[in-house]
Amino acid sequence: MTGMKRATEKNLMVFSGRAHPELAVEVAELLGTDLVPTSAYEFANSEIYVRYEESVRGCDAFVIQSHTAPINEWIMEHLIMVDALKRASAKRITVVMPFYGYARQDKKHRGREPISARLMADLFKTAGADRLICVDLHADQIQGYFDGPVDHLMALPILTDYVMEKYGNQPLCVVSPDAGRIKVAERWSAKLGGAPLAFIHKTRRTDVANEVVANRVVGEVAGKVCVLTDDMIDTGGTIVKAAEALMNDGAAGVIIAATHAILSDPAVDRLKNSPATEVIVTNTLPISAEREFDKLTTLSIAPLVARAIREVFEDGSVTSMFDGHA
Amino acid sequence: MTGMKRATEKNLMVFSGRAHPELAVEVAELLGTDLVPTSAYEFANSEIYVRYEESVRGCDAFVIQSHTAPINEWIMEHLIMVDALKRASAKRITVVMPFYGYARQDKKHRGREPISARLMADLFKTAGADRLICVDLHADQIQGYFDGPVDHLMALPILTDYVMEKYGNQPLCVVSPDAGRIKVAERWSAKLGGAPLAFIHKTRRTDVANEVVANRVVGEVAGKVCVLTDDMIDTGGTIVKAAEALMNDGAAGVIIAATHAILSDPAVDRLKNSPATEVIVTNTLPISAEREFDKLTTLSIAPLVARAIREVFEDGSVTSMFDGHA
Amino acid sequence: MTGMKRATEKNLMVFSGRAHPELAVEVAELLGTDLVPTSAYEFANSEIYVRYEESVRGCDAFVIQSHTAPINEWIMEHLIMVDALKRASAKRITVVMPFYGYARQDKKHRGREPISARLMADLFKTAGADRLICVDLHADQIQGYFDGPVDHLMALPILTDYVMEKYGNQPLCVVSPDAGRIKVAERWSAKLGGAPLAFIHKTRRTDVANEVVANRVVGEVAGKVCVLTDDMIDTGGTIVKAAEALMNDGAAGVIIAATHAILSDPAVDRLKNSPATEVIVTNTLPISAEREFDKLTTLSIAPLVARAIREVFEDGSVTSMFDGHA
Amino acid sequence: MTGMKRATEKNLMVFSGRAHPELAVEVAELLGTDLVPTSAYEFANSEIYVRYEESVRGCDAFVIQSHTAPINEWIMEHLIMVDALKRASAKRITVVMPFYGYARQDKKHRGREPISARLMADLFKTAGADRLICVDLHADQIQGYFDGPVDHLMALPILTDYVMEKYGNQPLCVVSPDAGRIKVAERWSAKLGGAPLAFIHKTRRTDVANEVVANRVVGEVAGKVCVLTDDMIDTGGTIVKAAEALMNDGAAGVIIAATHAILSDPAVDRLKNSPATEVIVTNTLPISAEREFDKLTTLSIAPLVARAIREVFEDGSVTSMFDGHA
Amino acid sequence: MTGMKRATEKNLMVFSGRAHPELAVEVAELLGTDLVPTSAYEFANSEIYVRYEESVRGCDAFVIQSHTAPINEWIMEHLIMVDALKRASAKRITVVMPFYGYARQDKKHRGREPISARLMADLFKTAGADRLICVDLHADQIQGYFDGPVDHLMALPILTDYVMEKYGNQPLCVVSPDAGRIKVAERWSAKLGGAPLAFIHKTRRTDVANEVVANRVVGEVAGKVCVLTDDMIDTGGTIVKAAEALMNDGAAGVIIAATHAILSDPAVDRLKNSPATEVIVTNTLPISAEREFDKLTTLSIAPLVARAIREVFEDGSVTSMFDGHA
Amino acid sequence: MTGMKRATEKNLMVFSGRAHPELAVEVAELLGTDLVPTSAYEFANSEIYVRYEESVRGCDAFVIQSHTAPINEWIMEHLIMVDALKRASAKRITVVMPFYGYARQDKKHRGREPISARLMADLFKTAGADRLICVDLHADQIQGYFDGPVDHLMALPILTDYVMEKYGNQPLCVVSPDAGRIKVAERWSAKLGGAPLAFIHKTRRTDVANEVVANRVVGEVAGKVCVLTDDMIDTGGTIVKAAEALMNDGAAGVIIAATHAILSDPAVDRLKNSPATEVIVTNTLPISAEREFDKLTTLSIAPLVARAIREVFEDGSVTSMFDGHA
Repeated sequence: MTGMKRATEKNLMVFSGRAHPELAVEVAELLGTDLVPTSAYEFANSEIYVRYEESVRGCDAFVIQSHTAPINEWIMEHLIMVDALKRASAKRITVVMPFYGYARQDKKHRGREPISARLMADLFKTAGADRLICVDLHADQIQGYFDGPVDHLMALPILTDYVMEKYGNQPLCVVSPDAGRIKVAERWSAKLGGAPLAFIHKTRRTDVANEVVANRVVGEVAGKVCVLTDDMIDTGGTIVKAAEALMNDGAAGVIIAATHAILSDPAVDRLKNSPATEVIVTNTLPISAEREFDKLTTLSIAPLVARAIREVFEDGSVTSMFDGHA
Repeated sequence: MTGMKRATEKNLMVFSGRAHPELAVEVAELLGTDLVPTSAYEFANSEIYVRYEESVRGCDAFVIQSHTAPINEWIMEHLIMVDALKRASAKRITVVMPFYGYARQDKKHRGREPISARLMADLFKTAGADRLICVDLHADQIQGYFDGPVDHLMALPILTDYVMEKYGNQPLCVVSPDAGRIKVAERWSAKLGGAPLAFIHKTRRTDVANEVVANRVVGEVAGKVCVLTDDMIDTGGTIVKAAEALMNDGAAGVIIAATHAILSDPAVDRLKNSPATEVIVTNTLPISAEREFDKLTTLSIAPLVARAIREVFEDGSVTSMFDGHA
Repeated sequence: MTGMKRATEKNLMVFSGRAHPELAVEVAELLGTDLVPTSAYEFANSEIYVRYEESVRGCDAFVIQSHTAPINEWIMEHLIMVDALKRASAKRITVVMPFYGYARQDKKHRGREPISARLMADLFKTAGADRLICVDLHADQIQGYFDGPVDHLMALPILTDYVMEKYGNQPLCVVSPDAGRIKVAERWSAKLGGAPLAFIHKTRRTDVANEVVANRVVGEVAGKVCVLTDDMIDTGGTIVKAAEALMNDGAAGVIIAATHAILSDPAVDRLKNSPATEVIVTNTLPISAEREFDKLTTLSIAPLVARAIREVFEDGSVTSMFDGHA
Repeated sequence: MTGMKRATEKNLMVFSGRAHPELAVEVAELLGTDLVPTSAYEFANSEIYVRYEESVRGCDAFVIQSHTAPINEWIMEHLIMVDALKRASAKRITVVMPFYGYARQDKKHRGREPISARLMADLFKTAGADRLICVDLHADQIQGYFDGPVDHLMALPILTDYVMEKYGNQPLCVVSPDAGRIKVAERWSAKLGGAPLAFIHKTRRTDVANEVVANRVVGEVAGKVCVLTDDMIDTGGTIVKAAEALMNDGAAGVIIAATHAILSDPAVDRLKNSPATEVIVTNTLPISAEREFDKLTTLSIAPLVARAIREVFEDGSVTSMFDGHA
Repeated sequence: MTGMKRATEKNLMVFSGRAHPELAVEVAELLGTDLVPTSAYEFANSEIYVRYEESVRGCDAFVIQSHTAPINEWIMEHLIMVDALKRASAKRITVVMPFYGYARQDKKHRGREPISARLMADLFKTAGADRLICVDLHADQIQGYFDGPVDHLMALPILTDYVMEKYGNQPLCVVSPDAGRIKVAERWSAKLGGAPLAFIHKTRRTDVANEVVANRVVGEVAGKVCVLTDDMIDTGGTIVKAAEALMNDGAAGVIIAATHAILSDPAVDRLKNSPATEVIVTNTLPISAEREFDKLTTLSIAPLVARAIREVFEDGSVTSMFDGHA
Repeated sequence: MTGMKRATEKNLMVFSGRAHPELAVEVAELLGTDLVPTSAYEFANSEIYVRYEESVRGCDAFVIQSHTAPINEWIMEHLIMVDALKRASAKRITVVMPFYGYARQDKKHRGREPISARLMADLFKTAGADRLICVDLHADQIQGYFDGPVDHLMALPILTDYVMEKYGNQPLCVVSPDAGRIKVAERWSAKLGGAPLAFIHKTRRTDVANEVVANRVVGEVAGKVCVLTDDMIDTGGTIVKAAEALMNDGAAGVIIAATHAILSDPAVDRLKNSPATEVIVTNTLPISAEREFDKLTTLSIAPLVARAIREVFEDGSVTSMFDGHA
């Protein structure tokens, strides 16, 4: 028989864009490797240039980029990194987007809008992505936008472990700031030992047309420490109003917990001045020094991402990390 | 100059599968045309055969099929009809699915599940569909599953017009049977002159682990005629329990309204025996004679579908049919 | 150098749809493994649900389903299983269809028909199939419909071994029921030690327009045990008439042999009442208990399928299983 | 409303490669237009260059090329012509291949062969072909190889009209040179007023292993003028042997009729020296002057192709040209 | 016959992103229409939102965006606009990019680089672009990166007409700043009545390793007004050094002419301080007020783009605009 | 856990078309293996047939073919070989084209031309190619035409090593025959120890319109041995005229060096009669015996190709072979 045989090896390599290298460094360290040395900068007219300083041929590539502002810049860099990997003969390319940019544009609210969340999935596919790893997608349906495997991680255990340890001995209540997101709160409740649920219901004034007046609290919150949960905090308006409504209804205290800390202006001011005593987030997105404040607690998502990468690399199970979900 | 010029004509043709021909006939009539004569039957081993009895070359084809049980049979027939149109040189193929089969499998609830709603979109694309027309998708994100234009129609105006005419002089209240679907109820409320909202909140018993006990009514329903709304009625369990809860809370009456009347067993029995005095649905799905019952009112979706087809054919605006939505 | 290396393993996993699990169990046993535990059932409205109970990440998946009636249901289940494997990160997905559904619709007999056999190939590709394993395709050209490798297995050796052992000491004759399929009979003849060939020629009556009268036997069959061969038996009409013609021409006996036992009504009655003394088929399709009858002999295709899977998994040669063919 | 409206015109343009321009000229004339002036030649290293001398923007292009020897050269020219049309903004590109190159390689006869007929379909799709027009494909299944509409024309009426006019008053018999192609002969018979059928059955000698000896005639041919029909004549071996067998069986005469006159050496010598008195073919392939001979009658396929192009251009019906077939 | 016929109209609509609306307004005016009213803005986290305020169903859309800094932002907006058009049922989408972003990254200069120019072509294709209109691509090969028609416009006639009118009575010389771009200079020469050519040749010092010393002028420039031409001016370093070299060689004067005025810092300072007496550019890219300076002459590319759009819309000839080129 | 694990092996197999088997044999020998036995021939009508005589299942296939005249024949054979490999379950298919056919048609020089170089990339992709290996592409941008990894090898080190050894002790000068290709000459210069550069500048006569008169030498060549370099020699006109110009300018001698020896007529005569004393080429293309001549030196490209294949097979680095380039 003709031919020449060799045993096959696979080679895990971790790459990072420039949006949030601290997270990628932490992930790589947890995996016991280094980030692949990479040149990346802008040309004078703001075009991005990327080059890997080592051979990536045949590798199992994990390319991490946080889709933070300026988000189009970082998404484009992410795409270009994937293109370079494809052309440099990476064997498999997994795009790791701890926060999935444009996830909220996942449907046409009105005619003649784009569905940008689907577009992003297609752009990454076109660039060469074989698979995605994401954390807490805005809607579960977004998994279906990518034509390939998506590992959908949940920050829930990280957040609830922290809350349980710090507040577990107090009477807790899980609150959803929006009736439409009550299912997430139900998962929190289960993790917090069956803590009671509440949520905020926006009602309209009857005397003024088309104006939302009240954030009515549904559920018993009096005397309880309310854990207000959401997937992300952008400008913080909704969640801070919810915190105020909870206090008005006699809550013993409010802590806010969310996976993605977008913290667009004026989120920091709003949160600082809110009745919440602690704001717990993860580092799926970078938080610049000037946006940090006393009440803010940032838990690292890196152990979760690192473990998922390891499971993917070693053909283990990501689902098992979440008791069958994901 | 070489070449031979002709003015271009477009030719609307309407096709129907065998799942629900009555709806297609009605649509065609409203458009002022006939269904294209079509042979369709099963071979001995249950393979489906389809053939069009007239030339379809260059036509603007609209292929209507309701995804009712046996749903796999009718979806496959739908796919085969599209294939035959593609190979017979139809110019453009619009798949009209008044009810989108497998829409509820639009995400992985747990690991290693399919996302069948996305799969369906891809299967129709592969068969040759250029575009879709759907009514009241289970989740708006499903629009993003198809790689092409999707016209998403809403039965809301049809249902609310009927309710307003019949019940408009009574004190109404719009009720969502599930907190997660309250946004639909808000649209109902707006159409019903700002009728107050309520919804059913499922709470868990504290004395028995993991068991849903109560369907708690949130909102003031006492003395009001409650319009319980949902996108579909499958086995009817949830909505009938909601109706009972409303009556327990002192509602003056309950009417149920939903777009898609799946009515799987034992839906009919449940609805018959429920406190609801009227069940208003549309004919996006066929309702067999034995499943009809006194309280059931079926409004035709055909005018909506026909108008959408006309707008699509004549490059009009579907969005304008819904005041900017869709 | 950055990166983390590991030796690569491959992992064979066998999956079965619900159409014919007995065959899949037998295949898995021959391979020395078990079927992957799988949940599969219908929802109330007949939509199919599938979930794998074990991690399938990185596996070399072989998904077996027999396309038997209700064929659209089982094909859709097959497609959904492939979708679930793709999204659960199976490394390679081989669709095993012992009988290829819609294979007879492999061309347009008349204008405006579908080419459903091509459509099926495209649907499986879209769902995520990397390759196919089939047995005795109705036309060899169907291999070309799938955009990827197709391993085309032949049941011939299984059938001829049985015939040789049981009838080898009698004067045999191989008969094709249709002039168009005489090449298959030639392969039978070669395997049966050069047994003479005959075939049935349908001729038209000259006194009645457009009516086939006679099944004329071409070749010498008198005094011989005729082995009537075809790729499939559907309703059994053609092959039973052929058996009668052979007896009329003085055959010593007739045995019928075919790969695919579709056995649509009234095949069983026809075969029972036919002059054939034995009907030899394989289990590419399930044969329900009520369709079994005394003269029916079912040989298992499982050893053939299992060996092919092993060759595919271990990068062996499927062609070598058939002396260079396939 | 914004925008600027214009009536839409379509513009038929006919293009020809260099393999067989006479046919294309004839087709264009029948359509009432001229071939689009085109530059085409080889560079020194045999690369082909093509350029259109007129604007083709927005046209409905029909690109005619006969796949004759050197067949790879002409297929590549055909592909390059399609690429140039696509990039020059032709609106629709119909590839007209009167003879489909590589049609006989439509399956793997043995392992590790290509399926070149499928490959050709894919290459033309990739180059930019929207649709195909073909004449008398070697196997009907090849229609399914192209991912788009295929208009499959039949030369049968042209050939049978000629035969009826010239030989209609003699006792005719239609003969297939191969049992596997008897269905074509049946269509001939129907067109020739129900002329009786016969065919040639190749049998093997029993005294010499693996050698085909006899071309046995099945059917009554004595005293009849036999019309030997096939889809193509390549080297002519099979059909000439069949003609001899017919004469040996007492045929009154033999005429040969085939659509595609490949006429590879030594076909011309064989046909000249055969007992056939006339060889009737069409000009789907060019016949060079030195390959013409007295007995050869060439009927033009141009009227058929021209009519099909007109039907395609004007959204008429190609199927109607063949009584529902094609 | 079933069906309903209508004459077909086409409808030109022009859309503009926010990078350079002045150009798009001018183009629309020249076409006799208005830009389609469009909402576009950033969300708090810098995600872009786009919506068209009018129905675009069935239109022939031309979407204009200049790829200026911040270039990734504007490219992403361009992609999102295309996605929204596709989903809103535009019939054909032509992407107009007067300057093609990332055009200079059209090859791997070193291993493990991306080919971003190809990536951009693929991203637009994925979003839904049917065709491109570009002006003076950095390399002609980039046309081949898009899988569809590309109309490649040349600013040459606009620039040379201006130069001829203003400087035609002086002794001119066309100079290329780089030996590799001399072919463009040859076209200039032809347009300027056969003006002599020169170019700048970079030579290396022999006494210092790897250092470019001289910009040697090749050709006779003494006493001539030198027209220094290039496709773009980015930071202006090369072209200003070339101007100095020309003056050193005795040129009577230098004018600089380029299509794309990127003018990244410190281009404006360099140009102001250069010996060039006039810098002639077009407005393919916006030039902010603070980057304008006395010597800068900006010619409008709008008439060229408008004429190309009209030819594309009306199935005219773009090639004819450039005497057979493009 | 279900499943059956095995260690994974990869298997290098080298295949050759019939255009230039000597090169492929040499490559295989250097790799320590044999060419896979392959049947390949033409049918009577010039269709190509290919079959591999050994199982190729799961192999890492490298398919070598030189695109020499008759180039369309050999490209088609190359495509068919890839198709056969794909269908025979090769795991990865690398197309090795030492000379990339149609590379010079990499843009539209005028309207309505094809971009054949892009078309070739797409045809190979369609046939099943996963990656390409090429040598000295006519333009670097062609790498971007293939949708996948391209390893672009350079013959430069092979050629310069030879020149250094033979002529290194003489005063060398590197000359580009065309101003547009001076960058290649710069690389030569660097490899030849910083030898001075010159190039040929075509100037036009001022007394005769549109006629190129002189090949003016730019740079100091007097007394030097000039190494005239180009990527290919086709008919040899340009390079031989350049050689003459160099001698006229007092060069001590001229040697010609090029990667691709197309040598179309009358290249051999021109080169023989030219003042060049040696013509150094590689064997990327076969040189038939009758085209060899005394002054011609052919260096083997096989070591370069073999090493690249080994790096690709073993996940090494091709870039490292060229100091970061490629």
